[in-house]
Amino acid sequence: MLDYEDVLAARDRVAETSRHTPLRYSHTFSSMTGADVHLKQEVFQRTGAFKIRGATNRVATLSESEREAGVVTASAGNHAQGVALAATRMGVDAKVVMPEGAPISKIKATQSYGAEVILDGVDYDEAAERAHEIEREEGRFYLHAFDDWEVMAGQGTIGLEICEDLPGVETVVVPIGGGGLIAGIATAIAGKQPDTRVIGVQAEGAASVPQSLERGERVERDSVDTIADGIATRTVGEKPFEVIKERVDEVVTVTDDQIAVAVTQLLERSKLLTEGAGAAPLAALLFERFDFDEDETIVPALCGGNIDLNTLTTVIVRGMAETGRYLRFRTVLPDRPGALDALVTVISETRSNIYAIRHDRTSRDVSMDDAEVELDVETRGPEHVANLLDRLEAAGYELDILT
Amino acid sequence: MLDYEDVLAARDRVAETSRHTPLRYSHTFSSMTGADVHLKQEVFQRTGAFKIRGATNRVATLSESEREAGVVTASAGNHAQGVALAATRMGVDAKVVMPEGAPISKIKATQSYGAEVILDGVDYDEAAERAHEIEREEGRFYLHAFDDWEVMAGQGTIGLEICEDLPGVETVVVPIGGGGLIAGIATAIAGKQPDTRVIGVQAEGAASVPQSLERGERVERDSVDTIADGIATRTVGEKPFEVIKERVDEVVTVTDDQIAVAVTQLLERSKLLTEGAGAAPLAALLFERFDFDEDETIVPALCGGNIDLNTLTTVIVRGMAETGRYLRFRTVLPDRPGALDALVTVISETRSNIYAIRHDRTSRDVSMDDAEVELDVETRGPEHVANLLDRLEAAGYELDILT
Repeated sequence: MLDYEDVLAARDRVAETSRHTPLRYSHTFSSMTGADVHLKQEVFQRTGAFKIRGATNRVATLSESEREAGVVTASAGNHAQGVALAATRMGVDAKVVMPEGAPISKIKATQSYGAEVILDGVDYDEAAERAHEIEREEGRFYLHAFDDWEVMAGQGTIGLEICEDLPGVETVVVPIGGGGLIAGIATAIAGKQPDTRVIGVQAEGAASVPQSLERGERVERDSVDTIADGIATRTVGEKPFEVIKERVDEVVTVTDDQIAVAVTQLLERSKLLTEGAGAAPLAALLFERFDFDEDETIVPALCGGNIDLNTLTTVIVRGMAETGRYLRFRTVLPDRPGALDALVTVISETRSNIYAIRHDRTSRDVSMDDAEVELDVETRGPEHVANLLDRLEAAGYELDILT
Repeated sequence: MLDYEDVLAARDRVAETSRHTPLRYSHTFSSMTGADVHLKQEVFQRTGAFKIRGATNRVATLSESEREAGVVTASAGNHAQGVALAATRMGVDAKVVMPEGAPISKIKATQSYGAEVILDGVDYDEAAERAHEIEREEGRFYLHAFDDWEVMAGQGTIGLEICEDLPGVETVVVPIGGGGLIAGIATAIAGKQPDTRVIGVQAEGAASVPQSLERGERVERDSVDTIADGIATRTVGEKPFEVIKERVDEVVTVTDDQIAVAVTQLLERSKLLTEGAGAAPLAALLFERFDFDEDETIVPALCGGNIDLNTLTTVIVRGMAETGRYLRFRTVLPDRPGALDALVTVISETRSNIYAIRHDRTSRDVSMDDAEVELDVETRGPEHVANLLDRLEAAGYELDILT
């Protein structure tokens, strides 16, 4: 079992490669929720995510012979970069197996931190298989991303920092993928400030912990489906689950749309880039997925900011659509002069801004004389969208809402 | 003329509404440039930009009768929000005229800070005309965005903070739109640490200061064209120009593509959202638009983060294309089974990831039997792009590069 002392012992080791990241009061999210919200900005961690902490503690606690043999791991994400930098900084050789379709930005980052990257397998499971082969063939230490006490102890140092920077904190909200992060944080908080609540958040399309807690044993999903790739796991680790059962107060879920809203709001209002997993705790708060009191001091742990920029643009559109600030729809115009003009006039009258128009006379779905048109429009919020749609329908347009 | 004492006097007043923003060492940009780079993160300022500082100092130094009459201004951007919040917090009534096409996000933000927003005019000039009408009709104080000594003194408090947080700073890089920000900062630095260089940066499509300095008098452009709307001015203010002539060491320009790269890199590597104007100083550094020594201590002032999210997605695509990480091209395929498959195979062989394919058999530009196809591809960098293009051309495809 993981003890508070393990986290304390990790602290100095972790400091060798990692930063004490800032905790910042958020005026915006406090007034939006009525709580007293402080953001733990782990996005400013080296490598852009918390994984470097656990990897560092694990490498630092290897035996001499293990260090000499080097480490190997499989990851398509933040763990790859964390292991690469931690090992390199401590003079230990590292190999990281990534699935072939991994984003080029993540492959390059992992290489730039000094690891040898091997591309193998179509998904994480196949990459992990290859990594275990290398473990056996080369006698390397397999550095697991979460199912390891020393890794969890390293992640727990985030909990120490939160308690020190904000001693009155009442609730800390933490994402759950493999469970290593929340196990570490919950252990730190249980030791340092036992009255503080720890709430876990999973993506709805990758949730297994609520069911696992109900049954008292780990449940494994057949598949996962979420934009938050950092927490897209079919189940939590065995060791983290032991800790979660004992020290986590509540585990809730958020949808991908809620995550997209949180990513978008963090960007726009706080000027911070987070990945889906990093924004999930704020999503749980904004959409009141757990109960909290007015002025309750709450810390969402923004655990990482490594989102592929191509994914980001998709997430922004979803986040804006979800809050009624962006609307994409399709309609059919009679193909005669002035038809498009008439449509645009209706839209302008509602003071919506048109971002883009795609006009297609050759669509197979419409009759020969008609033309299909698709519009992207900037709107003011849900009521504004409703008003715009009412006016368009009153003017006789049949609408097909696309986002 | 603006004096160091004016900036010192502004300090306590500005603190009533504004934050001392963090200065953070950047490992990434230091290793990319060889300099010792610290980012002044003014994006974390209240309202998301520095303008609140100058507006606060101006409102705080109004006479009693001016305060009672209220203020009026025109702006489509950060000044609108700065005036709104500064006035509201100090109990002064504020009206802000914005051009009709202003982004909805900025209109809503200005209203949420407590100002009355009047939408009038097609552009800034027309909005300013209306604001001056209101000034005359209602006897309000016209709060100019930059051509005002107290406004400049307020912006100068950024310079004080930089010198305090990093006493050894050798060079500070500051964007120039109307010139108020750099005039204030240069005055603070001249008073506190006169050996520190101050370098100004303008967008190439809105540059007037290099020519103005050459001629010794302000030059006004006929038009402006830049993605950095925060510094899209035809000329600098009369009063700021006096200060710039005396206290700014050098003024350089950056292109929109360079700005897009800087915005993208700040997002991806530093997890910070900046607007075009805010990223311009880093662009000047990354593209070596001025000379600097190895290990020179340089502070790019990231002065604002209020970029419209729709604009952001466009900027990201440009930024990625410019660094060889994104390629969009069009080509023509013979319209027969397997033709698309053959093209995709060539691309996969170079280990590029295909983001999107648009396939159109009805384009008017190609013969009846052919089909046009447009592809978005993720690439590893300039050499990778060159290699991909070579292979495609060797395979007989005629290419039309779109980004």
